[in-house]
Amino acid sequence: MNAPHPTLQQQAQQLSTSVTRPIPGSRKIHVPGSRSDVQVPMREIVLTRTPTLFGGEENAPVTVYDTSGPYTDPQAAIDLAAGLPALRAGWVAERGDTEPLARLSSAFGRSRALDARLDAVRFPSRTQPRRALAGANVTQMHYARRGIITPEMEFVAIRENQRLEAVREAALLRQHPGEAFGASIPALITPAFVRDEIARGRAVLPNNINHPESEPMIIGRNFLTKINANIGNSAVSSGIAEEVEKLVWAIRWGGDTVMDLSTGKHIHETREWIIRNSPVAIGTVPIYQALEKVDGRAEDLSWPIFRDTLIEQAEQGVDYFTIHAGVLLRYVPLTARRVTGIVSRGGSIMAKWCLAHHKENFLYTHFEDICEIMKAYDVTFSLGDGLRPGCIADANDAAQFGELETLGELTKVAWKHDVQTMIEGPGHVPMQLIKENMDKQLRECGEAPFYTLGPLTTDIAPGYDHITSAIGAAMIGWYGTAMLCYVTPKEHLGLPNRQDVRDGIMAYRIAAHAADLAKGHPGAQVRDNALSKARFEFRWEDQFHLGLDPEKAKEFHDETLPKDAHKLAHFCSMCGPHFCSMKITQDVRDYAAEHGLGEQDALQDGMAGKSAEFRALGADVYRQA
Amino acid sequence: MNAPHPTLQQQAQQLSTSVTRPIPGSRKIHVPGSRSDVQVPMREIVLTRTPTLFGGEENAPVTVYDTSGPYTDPQAAIDLAAGLPALRAGWVAERGDTEPLARLSSAFGRSRALDARLDAVRFPSRTQPRRALAGANVTQMHYARRGIITPEMEFVAIRENQRLEAVREAALLRQHPGEAFGASIPALITPAFVRDEIARGRAVLPNNINHPESEPMIIGRNFLTKINANIGNSAVSSGIAEEVEKLVWAIRWGGDTVMDLSTGKHIHETREWIIRNSPVAIGTVPIYQALEKVDGRAEDLSWPIFRDTLIEQAEQGVDYFTIHAGVLLRYVPLTARRVTGIVSRGGSIMAKWCLAHHKENFLYTHFEDICEIMKAYDVTFSLGDGLRPGCIADANDAAQFGELETLGELTKVAWKHDVQTMIEGPGHVPMQLIKENMDKQLRECGEAPFYTLGPLTTDIAPGYDHITSAIGAAMIGWYGTAMLCYVTPKEHLGLPNRQDVRDGIMAYRIAAHAADLAKGHPGAQVRDNALSKARFEFRWEDQFHLGLDPEKAKEFHDETLPKDAHKLAHFCSMCGPHFCSMKITQDVRDYAAEHGLGEQDALQDGMAGKSAEFRALGADVYRQA
Repeated sequence: MNAPHPTLQQQAQQLSTSVTRPIPGSRKIHVPGSRSDVQVPMREIVLTRTPTLFGGEENAPVTVYDTSGPYTDPQAAIDLAAGLPALRAGWVAERGDTEPLARLSSAFGRSRALDARLDAVRFPSRTQPRRALAGANVTQMHYARRGIITPEMEFVAIRENQRLEAVREAALLRQHPGEAFGASIPALITPAFVRDEIARGRAVLPNNINHPESEPMIIGRNFLTKINANIGNSAVSSGIAEEVEKLVWAIRWGGDTVMDLSTGKHIHETREWIIRNSPVAIGTVPIYQALEKVDGRAEDLSWPIFRDTLIEQAEQGVDYFTIHAGVLLRYVPLTARRVTGIVSRGGSIMAKWCLAHHKENFLYTHFEDICEIMKAYDVTFSLGDGLRPGCIADANDAAQFGELETLGELTKVAWKHDVQTMIEGPGHVPMQLIKENMDKQLRECGEAPFYTLGPLTTDIAPGYDHITSAIGAAMIGWYGTAMLCYVTPKEHLGLPNRQDVRDGIMAYRIAAHAADLAKGHPGAQVRDNALSKARFEFRWEDQFHLGLDPEKAKEFHDETLPKDAHKLAHFCSMCGPHFCSMKITQDVRDYAAEHGLGEQDALQDGMAGKSAEFRALGADVYRQA
Repeated sequence: MNAPHPTLQQQAQQLSTSVTRPIPGSRKIHVPGSRSDVQVPMREIVLTRTPTLFGGEENAPVTVYDTSGPYTDPQAAIDLAAGLPALRAGWVAERGDTEPLARLSSAFGRSRALDARLDAVRFPSRTQPRRALAGANVTQMHYARRGIITPEMEFVAIRENQRLEAVREAALLRQHPGEAFGASIPALITPAFVRDEIARGRAVLPNNINHPESEPMIIGRNFLTKINANIGNSAVSSGIAEEVEKLVWAIRWGGDTVMDLSTGKHIHETREWIIRNSPVAIGTVPIYQALEKVDGRAEDLSWPIFRDTLIEQAEQGVDYFTIHAGVLLRYVPLTARRVTGIVSRGGSIMAKWCLAHHKENFLYTHFEDICEIMKAYDVTFSLGDGLRPGCIADANDAAQFGELETLGELTKVAWKHDVQTMIEGPGHVPMQLIKENMDKQLRECGEAPFYTLGPLTTDIAPGYDHITSAIGAAMIGWYGTAMLCYVTPKEHLGLPNRQDVRDGIMAYRIAAHAADLAKGHPGAQVRDNALSKARFEFRWEDQFHLGLDPEKAKEFHDETLPKDAHKLAHFCSMCGPHFCSMKITQDVRDYAAEHGLGEQDALQDGMAGKSAEFRALGADVYRQA
């Protein structure tokens, strides 16, 4: 803690205010659980009173899910070189099934730790990692299957409910019935429900014991749809400080998990900074780093190198690993006639290895060995779709579906070890073929959470692939996908900058919420209703604050009507002051009230008797002239 | 033509090169029809040869639909004060059922023509408008029902085919079967098919006889999905010159029609400039102008004022009118309990009129009078959904569906007069309720083309409603909507600027194309396949050129790899030069070729026998190590 912090570390401590400024119109709250150390962060949006013209009532605050961690909390002291508070450390320790390690278990990790040249870029406050006691299994799935409700499970139950218990009943009367395609979403999420979903593999709670800084979060079709944002450099750009700031930026806008896809010579050190400062689950693709260890020659990869990489990353605290164990040798030639072949980096690495050795994928042949590692740290599998289609033409082909069947087989193996598992999915798929993907995944993988990249619904819009893919993401989320991996506008073209990341996340928050609404997720419509009421009543600031991106909404509004006074004006910039459809609607309401049409409340609720009564009333009205 | 052009007119003549610069990598072509004056414009994207590494073959050019008119043609001389060439003038005249008018028929039009104060803003080259001879019906529907194939119908048949006749068979082998939900899209669009679709009301060809500058275009569920872009000022901004440039900008990016929603004191003159320079169909909402004529007091509207406005605009050449004739008095109180009441301007104007007079909507009671005007100029109905939902909560309610039923009734009245008709639709609808809208519209309105605004699938993303709505638009387009009205990122917040218009159109071109792919529109996948092949082969420039927005794609790519040399580099910016999944796929192909796996072509085509043969081969491969 008191080690001297060289330049890079000092730099990393100074997050720019552009990523930490509080989100306008809201405050951070913490909802307590059954024990004092369960404090679930949420964001409360405070609303103003309805103008007298529209009735003058109070508007209750709206509580929303908050992925941004302490960074948006003006009360929180942030010290990147110290890392976030280890809020789960006590929970992990009290279970008594893990031990702190005297030294790192991976050879690579040890060599990095001993290399003095890395002092300048090293995270300075590392504590010793933990591992399961010999023979112990420390996965949330293992606990769940033994009937245990962990603090993590209680935490996510509270988090998923978003304090809607109080308003849920009223809210549901103002929410359309959903079509959930076989999902079973309860009206209230209980800790026991969380446990049961994890136990049967239908949800995962990715929480490595070495990432105690994380705020637990659950991924499953019966919970809110989650999104992932990727960060990472490449040979061409970026440094450590920039990567941490990217993380904070990505969770500010709503990334539920972040995948660190960094490459380059400080990949190990970068990851440490990211994990120590991340309140969200971190995923990686360990084969990327393994490939760097063999200088980019896929054919030189081996199980020992990969195994050491898994352990290295597991002891840093990575919460889920993408493992391309379904790229079997026999599937590889199925891709030869594709328009875009193999587009997954991990998939192509393993394909090359298989071809070079004329052997079965070592991730497949060593899958149970991998399970042993996963359960010693509670790393969740994200079984990679290395053969996903890279264009519309290749969608739903034999290679893709063959691999998916193998992922289903591997899911059952992982579950045998009580290892949490989700399944990655495509990619590029035209709309009419999306549901087939979801249905097959549910069938083959026993409802293990599906985690898809989009899918992009057309190939012809480079520069706008956050949109081509948000369409597919919303649909597959509706059909049952549990987490959506974002796509930025730079997809296929280059590395996303900060604006691209924000645009990609927004497109995916939209897709995820559209999916929740369509599934009929209880309470999902509360925020839509509150925002639309604010819009109708010209409560401009409330409308901005209830939106996914309050800053952008205000900025856009200010372009046309920049004066603060206009925020209270009872007209909008589209119609101007002389005519306003919202104002006319108020006339309609007044008219209806004057003519005793209040009875029609009932009509909205679909009661046929009241409807007939109203029609009779209505007939009087329009014939009396 | 040789009249002196005052300041504003000179200004309008100078379109900025930002709206007229040619679209990179392509050239304007004209495909001839059966007569020399049928010359159908298209855009041909010229492709480079495949690099030797990937086979070295030629890549045929790809022809795409082109809405941009002469503006993107470097050969065309543009003179805004003269207007575009009247390419349809001869077709209209030769039918012998219309006559040029000695004077304008509308009192308002005449008063504007005589007002010398307007000389400075007046379009200088106006020719006399035409009208049907007494008792004649000059609609395309009327001709179609008499078995006539007009040059307009031949034009759109050629245009819809996009020169795919030659490649269609090969293309279809590389296209997924669609799910068209009852649409009947033929493999080749013939002029007779166009006629038959118009005759039965399943498609409209909006082409006012007074807009001979237009390039015919068809809207119907069995044709390519179209999009509309709105332009217009408001009390707060804009001028005439700017409006014309907005038109050119909107069609550059792909607006198939443009609605002119301008208000303000020069609304009549602005419209004239726009129509005279528009190669696409222009729509308006005449009630907006009528309202200005009564100083914004909806209750002062009357049939004579509205009738004069319809004639005024019909003689200028407006191709379709939004008419809110379905806002019946009895539906108005149904909106009183909505969260956002009536959000359509036209709907709220008519609701206010109905309430103020305690009378039925005069657009409804005078509907057959309106039909008489429509058929004298061939103006197409766009029956307005004045009661569309303005938020998720109000979707699919009694007011909305009641109005839709009335629009169905009016469609049959319009068809009795052989007047072309399309139906406007929502709005804000969560995904699970979208299909109900489409199914009900098809049922109530006898398959008349549906023309929807989005729908937006959530309310919570002000600033990003081009995305919330592109999701709904793609889905409803798939289900059968014929034209999608765009939504810009400024929706609900302010007036769109140029960038917002481009972003909105792009989102909607994506939605429309995703819908065409999903319906299995024959040949729709040709462009996706060509772009993805270019992508795989690192033909960067070809990839940009085949995209919907080549300039944006190149700009994004250049941010990461700015040097021209990189456009030819066989790696992409995501993986960097050391490792590239595309390159590995080429290794897979080489491997497959070496090992005699070319036989698997058959597998892609789904031939079971060949598949078994391949598996046997494959087994050899992966067991030989």
